[in-house]
Amino acid sequence: MSETHDELLDRLGEAARRAARQLAVTDSQQRNQALETAAQAIRQQAEIILAANRQDLDQAAERGLSGAMLDRLRLDSSRLEGMAAGLEQIAALADPLGRLLAEWTRPNGLRIERVAVPIGVIGVIYESRPNVTADAAGLCLKSGNAVILRGGSEAVASNRAIHRALVAGLIEAGLDEAAVQLLPTQDHEAVGSLLRAHRWLDMVVPRGGKRLVARVQAEARVPVLAHLDGNNHLYLHPSADIDMAVAVIANAKMRRPGICGALETLLIDEQALDSVGAIIDRLLALGCELRADARLCALDGRLRAASEADWDTEYLDAILAMRSVAGPEQALAHIARHGSGHTDGILAGDDALAADFLARLDSAIAVHNASTQFADGGEFGFGAEIGIATGRLHARGPVGVDQLTTFQYRVFGQGQTRP
Amino acid sequence: MSETHDELLDRLGEAARRAARQLAVTDSQQRNQALETAAQAIRQQAEIILAANRQDLDQAAERGLSGAMLDRLRLDSSRLEGMAAGLEQIAALADPLGRLLAEWTRPNGLRIERVAVPIGVIGVIYESRPNVTADAAGLCLKSGNAVILRGGSEAVASNRAIHRALVAGLIEAGLDEAAVQLLPTQDHEAVGSLLRAHRWLDMVVPRGGKRLVARVQAEARVPVLAHLDGNNHLYLHPSADIDMAVAVIANAKMRRPGICGALETLLIDEQALDSVGAIIDRLLALGCELRADARLCALDGRLRAASEADWDTEYLDAILAMRSVAGPEQALAHIARHGSGHTDGILAGDDALAADFLARLDSAIAVHNASTQFADGGEFGFGAEIGIATGRLHARGPVGVDQLTTFQYRVFGQGQTRP
Repeated sequence: MSETHDELLDRLGEAARRAARQLAVTDSQQRNQALETAAQAIRQQAEIILAANRQDLDQAAERGLSGAMLDRLRLDSSRLEGMAAGLEQIAALADPLGRLLAEWTRPNGLRIERVAVPIGVIGVIYESRPNVTADAAGLCLKSGNAVILRGGSEAVASNRAIHRALVAGLIEAGLDEAAVQLLPTQDHEAVGSLLRAHRWLDMVVPRGGKRLVARVQAEARVPVLAHLDGNNHLYLHPSADIDMAVAVIANAKMRRPGICGALETLLIDEQALDSVGAIIDRLLALGCELRADARLCALDGRLRAASEADWDTEYLDAILAMRSVAGPEQALAHIARHGSGHTDGILAGDDALAADFLARLDSAIAVHNASTQFADGGEFGFGAEIGIATGRLHARGPVGVDQLTTFQYRVFGQGQTRP
Repeated sequence: MSETHDELLDRLGEAARRAARQLAVTDSQQRNQALETAAQAIRQQAEIILAANRQDLDQAAERGLSGAMLDRLRLDSSRLEGMAAGLEQIAALADPLGRLLAEWTRPNGLRIERVAVPIGVIGVIYESRPNVTADAAGLCLKSGNAVILRGGSEAVASNRAIHRALVAGLIEAGLDEAAVQLLPTQDHEAVGSLLRAHRWLDMVVPRGGKRLVARVQAEARVPVLAHLDGNNHLYLHPSADIDMAVAVIANAKMRRPGICGALETLLIDEQALDSVGAIIDRLLALGCELRADARLCALDGRLRAASEADWDTEYLDAILAMRSVAGPEQALAHIARHGSGHTDGILAGDDALAADFLARLDSAIAVHNASTQFADGGEFGFGAEIGIATGRLHARGPVGVDQLTTFQYRVFGQGQTRP
């Protein structure tokens, strides 16, 4: 009888656990060497990877995938070089392991350290972009975690070729090749087995669209680090400098309207309505559709009427919802009701009021006088990120290599016994 | 038609969420006032609480509960005073909210703060001891979290009386009484609804026996902070001072054999076998049963033979498993295979070897030359704890008020836009 999905996961999981134990005690140099040799292997095996990718592209075209999907799937020498350089950049980051997070001595002389250690085994489930294979493996490896990868079925040949290059790097650095494993089947039910493998997996990170994230959150029996929505808000307070506000709003919405940190609803204080014209001018000039409440629509005929559903919509597109509010309290109430806890903020000249507003937001990232599009691990200075988390435990906001660690207490005594 | 359990949880959950939002922006003084007035209310309502407790005790005696169970359930004026004083001690702790956990400025001038904020709504499921009602509510309140409590069915009248005193404290401090709610039904299926209420609950903490913890871990659709087992190990290295080792081993096993931090297996280096006699003398004198591998049994006729099952058993009793190992590697392999990730350690005079050993342990708490019974929030200096966690995410080891918080990033700009 052939292996069931649960048996497959037991086999991969046990190997991953063994590799994780080895990784946890490697030094930074050995993990960096694996990243660097993996980068070299990607360059050396470029032709093989690109040939595998052409195979994926041909099959995807036959299956009628959209142009946007094909573009996400496509690799070329520049994208391959980006992947290799990305691994080298991860190698160059400071070692997230062994950081002394806290240290104190008890009255009885016990010295207690809180030290960063790897999480263990991480599952990463992603969609069509094959570069995630290298990025996710690199971030997990850097942070001493073994990883089990499950990429999209349309990228299966590309992912296998990239995985082979990564394994070459592991072997050359003397690491267990099970530190980076690729789920060897595209069977949809194998993902279910992966999500239920709490004996072997310490965490799952889904990277992809809302449908993927929702499935992972619904089915996982292990902790999930992810965000489902980025329905982000800015509240314009009358104390804000209008030129600053217009520039930040335009950037927050239109720099890249499709990313999770993009602004989706602008809340405008009733005392700041004389700024509305300048904001509308700028956004319309950038090609943004504007949907507003009745009060704003009455002020400016260029606005379309918003419906209730607009307040709950993450457009991920060149569309902005606008609503007038009576003041900070009403703005906070709107965000509490409609927000997704990702990134929200305030535009205000009054610093004390702004600090209070941020403290009252229940969002992973709260911003004052800056674009919501700074919600990004690179912009936070984390070097690279595996995603943004909006859950409340362990990590919130950008998840970089430090956030892929947990900690251990180390207690040093001189023979102390407890009375 | 009467309310279903899911509808009940929606009602309690929505009220808890509202209370949590209010709590998150209270200052320390207001939360401490609620704790202090709750302590006073427990003292003032002592007669009512004790009468309710007698009702529970009578019913429990009728149902034939064991003497140990009845003792856990029993309240008297001294235990009530302990409960009130416990709330006052929690009030006296430093405020866990608003702590600046990190702060940095990016090259573009953005200042980023990482600030401690409450988790939100916490569910606490516990068994017969009614004092958990006050302890758990106190810790959650101090850390700005709303809590939904579900105590044991045998303590239902006691828990309701204590809950009423806590609510009196909340009301007097001007807080939403839904900050501390008690599940109003003892129906077993209501616990299932609570464990599935991921819309309203951010975390669940089970406090009780292994059966309760296992059920919560299996059924919960929200993160669980708990430990299932404390199968703890010490490894005796030949460099250890033998008098120190004997004292620490005796304390780790016999101070209170029934707590989760108690030692369960002693691993003895083959080069340290001449110390075994002194260890056996001391443990037998304290009334401890000793189960050992063949090699140790051949050395000392007072030892009983251990079976394979002993290595995996958390006795929680005056029994110790003993095994000889060839060295640190074999000790680590034994712990990796049989340990539960709670508290493990080494007895050694060689500090460098000990530090390396701790780093190679995959345990929440790793100890050198000290009793495993220090695995406790009070002993760590946390003031009070809601339990010990052996999961890998968010909090590991003792869970005190700081561990009942999460964080928010606050980004302060001067109009920055992302290029």
